Amino acid sequence: MLTIANKTFSSRLFIGSGKYSSADVMKSSIRASGSELITLALKRVDFNQPTDDIVTPIKELGLDILPNTSGAKTADEAIYAARLAREALQTHWLKLEIHPDPNYLLPDPIETLKAAEQLVKEGFVVMPYCGADPVLCKRLEEVGCEAVMPLGSPIGSNKGLVTRDFLNIIIEQASVPVVVDAGIGAPSHAAEAMEIGADAVLVNTAIATAHDPIAMSNAFRQTVDAGRTAFEAGLSGIVSGTAPNNRNSSMHA
Amino acid sequence: MLTIANKTFSSRLFIGSGKYSSADVMKSSIRASGSELITLALKRVDFNQPTDDIVTPIKELGLDILPNTSGAKTADEAIYAARLAREALQTHWLKLEIHPDPNYLLPDPIETLKAAEQLVKEGFVVMPYCGADPVLCKRLEEVGCEAVMPLGSPIGSNKGLVTRDFLNIIIEQASVPVVVDAGIGAPSHAAEAMEIGADAVLVNTAIATAHDPIAMSNAFRQTVDAGRTAFEAGLSGIVSGTAPNNRNSSMHA
Amino acid sequence: MLTIANKTFSSRLFIGSGKYSSADVMKSSIRASGSELITLALKRVDFNQPTDDIVTPIKELGLDILPNTSGAKTADEAIYAARLAREALQTHWLKLEIHPDPNYLLPDPIETLKAAEQLVKEGFVVMPYCGADPVLCKRLEEVGCEAVMPLGSPIGSNKGLVTRDFLNIIIEQASVPVVVDAGIGAPSHAAEAMEIGADAVLVNTAIATAHDPIAMSNAFRQTVDAGRTAFEAGLSGIVSGTAPNNRNSSMHA
Amino acid sequence: MLTIANKTFSSRLFIGSGKYSSADVMKSSIRASGSELITLALKRVDFNQPTDDIVTPIKELGLDILPNTSGAKTADEAIYAARLAREALQTHWLKLEIHPDPNYLLPDPIETLKAAEQLVKEGFVVMPYCGADPVLCKRLEEVGCEAVMPLGSPIGSNKGLVTRDFLNIIIEQASVPVVVDAGIGAPSHAAEAMEIGADAVLVNTAIATAHDPIAMSNAFRQTVDAGRTAFEAGLSGIVSGTAPNNRNSSMHA
Repeated sequence: MLTIANKTFSSRLFIGSGKYSSADVMKSSIRASGSELITLALKRVDFNQPTDDIVTPIKELGLDILPNTSGAKTADEAIYAARLAREALQTHWLKLEIHPDPNYLLPDPIETLKAAEQLVKEGFVVMPYCGADPVLCKRLEEVGCEAVMPLGSPIGSNKGLVTRDFLNIIIEQASVPVVVDAGIGAPSHAAEAMEIGADAVLVNTAIATAHDPIAMSNAFRQTVDAGRTAFEAGLSGIVSGTAPNNRNSSMHA
Repeated sequence: MLTIANKTFSSRLFIGSGKYSSADVMKSSIRASGSELITLALKRVDFNQPTDDIVTPIKELGLDILPNTSGAKTADEAIYAARLAREALQTHWLKLEIHPDPNYLLPDPIETLKAAEQLVKEGFVVMPYCGADPVLCKRLEEVGCEAVMPLGSPIGSNKGLVTRDFLNIIIEQASVPVVVDAGIGAPSHAAEAMEIGADAVLVNTAIATAHDPIAMSNAFRQTVDAGRTAFEAGLSGIVSGTAPNNRNSSMHA
Repeated sequence: MLTIANKTFSSRLFIGSGKYSSADVMKSSIRASGSELITLALKRVDFNQPTDDIVTPIKELGLDILPNTSGAKTADEAIYAARLAREALQTHWLKLEIHPDPNYLLPDPIETLKAAEQLVKEGFVVMPYCGADPVLCKRLEEVGCEAVMPLGSPIGSNKGLVTRDFLNIIIEQASVPVVVDAGIGAPSHAAEAMEIGADAVLVNTAIATAHDPIAMSNAFRQTVDAGRTAFEAGLSGIVSGTAPNNRNSSMHA
Repeated sequence: MLTIANKTFSSRLFIGSGKYSSADVMKSSIRASGSELITLALKRVDFNQPTDDIVTPIKELGLDILPNTSGAKTADEAIYAARLAREALQTHWLKLEIHPDPNYLLPDPIETLKAAEQLVKEGFVVMPYCGADPVLCKRLEEVGCEAVMPLGSPIGSNKGLVTRDFLNIIIEQASVPVVVDAGIGAPSHAAEAMEIGADAVLVNTAIATAHDPIAMSNAFRQTVDAGRTAFEAGLSGIVSGTAPNNRNSSMHA
């Protein structure tokens, strides 16, 4: 079992709510994925509507929402969005996402750390999206983040774990859960992340834009489970660099 | 569903019977894998024993045995072993394996084609282990092989789909099932093989030598299923080179 | 120094004569490359012309021509072309190339071995283009080929040494020179081939289709030299799998 | 020609002064490399000695020294070391290097930016060693760094351009020279960095620990030249992601 802050999760697959063709497809996909934590871009929420196509279906499923600050270009914008989200969505969980460059959507390490520090002080459960930078991940952990979310490869590239050598170090050194985010374009990538000892993965585009998103959700659910099982069952010799077995696999469990 | 010769398989995971710590572990592993076809090195069978630690447990599970000619260095040796296997094990299915070099166990394309041609004439269902060589695979198909078994990477390297660019071409061109064999060292590798459109995978060492072979069997079962689901559900843009979606995914189904 | 058959080469870069924008560009490119052996597709030669745009410039440079049988789909076609070449071009050197599939131009291992055996008997210096298949390379050597020319990746893919794990084994086992052919799309790829211990590389498209083919020839000349120097100077620990230093680097020198 | 600050360099290869077996070998290696800028770890300099085995030979060669702050764990330590270096070595050039983790020696993005800002104000020519983080590189440029030095792969891993997808973005976006640092374990890696459009590379271990450092220096010199030539000559289609040709190759020249 995975624990973040004081919450326990049966599923190690977090999924996004963007890019679905309809609210119904999203709802069925989420259900098929088994996910218990659904990210939601704040910029997509209309806070004046009592019901909508995104928040309402997630709540109907009884699942937790993880608002994200996608679109924020600075710490200030992200902090502002976070406070708004807390009030509107009644949650203090937050995926912190700050990317000044609209082209590649890569995270800003400086602003992310600054906002994380402030938001932790304000009582948020902060899970920052960040580069696969072991020193930065350690810093984020030190200011009180409850998890780190390093990227596997550039968003939308579907290239999988390009940063694997760095993820190995992050996983070895982290004492909070490591959630691999961005670049996971196929169920095999999710399996690989779990095999090297990541605690969870976040997937959005690869599911939402599949020809059959519900079947794809199911495929990801299976490979995340299987990758975790393989990690715990002790893969013999596949992992280059840092051996995942050196790490106590029940640390966050 | 996968069909080879006239037999239909629910599971696209074939597994080996070597390197297990005991017959009991092997039996439990095979059961957990869901596999319906178990390879068996003829050189390991004592044909004078009425019961043994390998054949008997597989038969008790009610599963089909796929004898392999591992250890044969020439077509003649392989043909001899195949005939022996047919009589002793009462099956005309055969994984044809000829490797003159005891160090890297890489298959001999010339002897393999020669033996395949002869064994097909003798009524065997021949599934040859071979390099990831698209022209050779086509040749093997033309002489009547019922499947081809190209390698993902050198045996025992656990490197996964190093030959992926060539497997893509083989899968695109084949009209018999493609079973990826050798080099599959982690469940994520098996998922990847299925995602690019392979019809099945064969796994042995990665399961048999895991710390917990039964859990690992289960992990492979899940990722093979999930990889196939993902292939059928249409991955959007992960695959370089040949798009798996160009291929009729039900061709061998 | 590299020796093939009884000929000694200062340059370990072989280049092709196809795809140049003009005979002049080709001539300048060849000169800049420092290459002493130029491949030439027989199908491009008009044997009725006393002078032409390809053979004549190469001869004017005083360089050796290595005719290739590109376009041949069978051993018979290749043998026919080879005999024709010997008479017309007055050379018994031959790059043997047999690819039945016009799409991917991948070599046929069976027909290639068959033709090689026959052509060696007829006195040709046979250098076969082949898959990166260590067993096949050994076979080709055993029938008398003076070098082997395994591919780095599919022709025209520009992907570099995708087959590196197999090239390592080929280089370790070969007792004739190993010339990496196909897939070399950048000077860095040529350097890498030399670093792992290849004896030479063959480059065509990457030079002929560069914006500035003459400058690119020069770049390849430098990286081939440098890669060889690095191999001989003993790279410390870059090479996975087979260490190039285990091999006597002066074996073919 | 490469220009950093107001200085022009003929050579795009920067090399380190550590790990050589003797001052003589270092001196001959540096000369063979053609490098005009030599990094030097401040912690290795004995400022009380009028002559020594490191600074003196470099000065005898008439080359510029680029002191680095390797070993500094914080911005304050790095700033202190930089000021010391300026006085002792009479140069305001600085490779800024801050790594709190003694195990993997990965750079700290936060402290590096902080120190860079201060040191630029104090008149230093600051060249920071950093992760292959495009947003951070942009930030470093904005506070006045004259170049950025992103890593190719973890120091000492000899894995080459693992971060290639990110380097492509950095190179596309940078308006100061990009010098690839760390992980370059073979001349082919240096060629690749130049081919994708990097402005220079920094190499130390791969040269200093080679069996023959002088020959290896020469090999790196050649592949750096050749890689740059190839970049300018227009490689046709090798580069995935960002095409180097989209960038004005003479921007920093």
